[in-house]
Amino acid sequence: MRNANQYDIKFSSSLTVQTVSASLSDKYVYNAARVSTLGQGVLEDSGEKKMSGLISYLMKNRHGTPFEHNSITFFISAPIFVFREFMRHRIGFSYNEESGRYRILQPIFYLPDNSRPLVQSGKTGEYIFLEGSKGQTELLKKNLADVSITSYIKYREMLDSGIAREVARMILPINIYSSMYVTCNARSIMSFVSLRTRDDESKFKSFPMEEIDRVGREIEKQWGTHMPITHAAFIKYGRVSP
Amino acid sequence: MRNANQYDIKFSSSLTVQTVSASLSDKYVYNAARVSTLGQGVLEDSGEKKMSGLISYLMKNRHGTPFEHNSITFFISAPIFVFREFMRHRIGFSYNEESGRYRILQPIFYLPDNSRPLVQSGKTGEYIFLEGSKGQTELLKKNLADVSITSYIKYREMLDSGIAREVARMILPINIYSSMYVTCNARSIMSFVSLRTRDDESKFKSFPMEEIDRVGREIEKQWGTHMPITHAAFIKYGRVSP
Amino acid sequence: MRNANQYDIKFSSSLTVQTVSASLSDKYVYNAARVSTLGQGVLEDSGEKKMSGLISYLMKNRHGTPFEHNSITFFISAPIFVFREFMRHRIGFSYNEESGRYRILQPIFYLPDNSRPLVQSGKTGEYIFLEGSKGQTELLKKNLADVSITSYIKYREMLDSGIAREVARMILPINIYSSMYVTCNARSIMSFVSLRTRDDESKFKSFPMEEIDRVGREIEKQWGTHMPITHAAFIKYGRVSP
Amino acid sequence: MRNANQYDIKFSSSLTVQTVSASLSDKYVYNAARVSTLGQGVLEDSGEKKMSGLISYLMKNRHGTPFEHNSITFFISAPIFVFREFMRHRIGFSYNEESGRYRILQPIFYLPDNSRPLVQSGKTGEYIFLEGSKGQTELLKKNLADVSITSYIKYREMLDSGIAREVARMILPINIYSSMYVTCNARSIMSFVSLRTRDDESKFKSFPMEEIDRVGREIEKQWGTHMPITHAAFIKYGRVSP
Repeated sequence: MRNANQYDIKFSSSLTVQTVSASLSDKYVYNAARVSTLGQGVLEDSGEKKMSGLISYLMKNRHGTPFEHNSITFFISAPIFVFREFMRHRIGFSYNEESGRYRILQPIFYLPDNSRPLVQSGKTGEYIFLEGSKGQTELLKKNLADVSITSYIKYREMLDSGIAREVARMILPINIYSSMYVTCNARSIMSFVSLRTRDDESKFKSFPMEEIDRVGREIEKQWGTHMPITHAAFIKYGRVSP
Repeated sequence: MRNANQYDIKFSSSLTVQTVSASLSDKYVYNAARVSTLGQGVLEDSGEKKMSGLISYLMKNRHGTPFEHNSITFFISAPIFVFREFMRHRIGFSYNEESGRYRILQPIFYLPDNSRPLVQSGKTGEYIFLEGSKGQTELLKKNLADVSITSYIKYREMLDSGIAREVARMILPINIYSSMYVTCNARSIMSFVSLRTRDDESKFKSFPMEEIDRVGREIEKQWGTHMPITHAAFIKYGRVSP
Repeated sequence: MRNANQYDIKFSSSLTVQTVSASLSDKYVYNAARVSTLGQGVLEDSGEKKMSGLISYLMKNRHGTPFEHNSITFFISAPIFVFREFMRHRIGFSYNEESGRYRILQPIFYLPDNSRPLVQSGKTGEYIFLEGSKGQTELLKKNLADVSITSYIKYREMLDSGIAREVARMILPINIYSSMYVTCNARSIMSFVSLRTRDDESKFKSFPMEEIDRVGREIEKQWGTHMPITHAAFIKYGRVSP
Repeated sequence: MRNANQYDIKFSSSLTVQTVSASLSDKYVYNAARVSTLGQGVLEDSGEKKMSGLISYLMKNRHGTPFEHNSITFFISAPIFVFREFMRHRIGFSYNEESGRYRILQPIFYLPDNSRPLVQSGKTGEYIFLEGSKGQTELLKKNLADVSITSYIKYREMLDSGIAREVARMILPINIYSSMYVTCNARSIMSFVSLRTRDDESKFKSFPMEEIDRVGREIEKQWGTHMPITHAAFIKYGRVSP
């Protein structure tokens, strides 16, 4: 008889964002913008002292294209329901995701930790989330664990019987983890982050789901360390994507 | 005590593609292409007799832009695992999908019918699918039904306890149905269809999953009735997107 | 000997924007947005009374995708320097332009009329334009006319000698008219218009060139008549593209 | 009185493509593709011996997305008529071009050298180009030089009179040089190159203008040195963009 231990089924509340490669620099923004006003002259280095002022100007006035001449690739591991929201971002994003048609999916399932607010309040589109009661927390953990384990055991049972991976996987819940490579640039990151993080300083407030907010903040942090001037200007002007 | 009947849980193997609105015509392709050679003159109607020849020429020589000046909106209902593949198409596609954050998801689950081949054979990337045995078919139906029903009951139980929709839905499997509006154009449709339908006459063969192949064929059929000359040229030149 | 009359060289200050076909309606926005909250139910008509409120909500909160399920095709005739700016818009725009490789370009050249301000003042990126003096106006007209006529005569002279169109055209100035088909949607139009029209009510001010501003206003006007609720919401919320 | 010498007007037939920064590697393609089959495991290095086989497989079967996780920025200097064709490429391309609104354009004009074929023969869309006669070559050079010089002198005359740069520039011909930053990735480069270079080994033949063909070949060369395995596979499978 099958059991959960047999498959080493794991539960996790972590969300992984790992920079795989990066070609990012505030200088790239500066140089790209200077092509407009200098043409050929842009290739001669002219010092960095005016960089901050120019980047602020571009951000404030929403000149977006100079922020596109760079790229960063992340490896991201998160549950499918996060990827479903993530992949709605079409422009300036490239994806390669783990495939349930080509491999046996691993038994790792998302289970919110105790800090995850469970109850929504307020009106549509501007929900506030509040802590769950002890009973709600226990019910959630029990139910998620039950279905995760049961579905995975049945998934493997179907694979063992010779049913194809692409068919057997239909049984798996959206809290199963997947992984992907994502490549984007400073402009597409700012667009993503402006919509997928919640921040009281935003000129246009967003109300994203907690889990994608966490992924967004981690992307913002890793990207921001490579482009501190651009990141500071993004915050200064209200987290509006240029 | 909760039970399946209480929620009227349904199983289905159907995939819905419904044209909501369409602004499609072979004539649009013809006129857009004629701007290149006629400029202002394109606004004067010149008869349709050369239309077929010009469209064939564009398709054969992969002049893609004239096929973009049109649009069609579909309402599509299919399980989440189909939408996951569908939404990988970024260019020339607009989406609005039913949200598990804003509404209680309906209890309709995908259960393959008996014609769905269950066993894959052959090498990676070029799988051939064969009919499942009676035992496999029964196992699949039993397992999918069990998990669908159990997960949905637990989903509603969590909602009833006051847990937010966006949290409770994490428990649902990817065979649950969702629905969306998709807007695209003749060029993006041909790109989609060339990758997501399997056809022996294709110059570049694709090996899509059966369910998205069915959706792709239905999209192709409905689109093709509005643009018969373009559709015929697409087939004639090996189903290569221009 | 060649002369201008031989070619019927024309000067114009007009900019043509002509709706060729349109599949636009506020209702499409409403229905696409309702898929999120209604799923299958969206196909049942529920009256229009809530439409205005929902569209306002989408605009204010920058939910952009519901504005993409529609399309409009324009025939535009304008000088090349306008098209150069126009075609920088990549997303949600399809183009087919008259080709100097495939046809002999017609001798129609842009000559600003007297209302066109000629002198710029103020700081970079926020220029104010002022009326030109009589001397400036005359110099501009004389110089533009001279070069337009001379270059066109030499263009045709080269064609007559057997030089290929794609080579001979290199001599033509960027005030020569071209024409194109452009297909876009409500969202891409709002993005274009927010950057390419100057308006004191804009939350983010833009400082476009006069000629593309005129094209932008005409596009906005023709589009707006088909989607009055969306257009009103766009204005109300500061001409920010959702 | 004004004269050409005063402005140091130059003629050139060169086209500059200069790699500014690059984040390119065959390994990135390999790793992105392996996410599909390995998930988390992709982060562990597994040696390169299977890299060539996997990249060939992806190219042959037109799996395009793994070729997007990389980027390269070029500085390009070429006449405006080349940029007009270049910027029709919308997807996977970012641009910043020198602006005639923000700076005085430099007096450098394209003048084809003697190797540039001047006469076209054959049918529409499949032109063959032949060498020009001595008379044609001389006529071209004389006419281009005349208009370039005259228009530039009149351009500066208008600037000197106080007419704004954005207005005065309308007089300049499309053989004037401009410069830009372009950022793209391996997939968008292959799409560009498949359409903008002429090659007898192409599965789908293209008939680009000579000058953009030269730019395309230089882009291909510089990109190819960073991704030799991908480049070889692109050639092997008929220069079809995956």
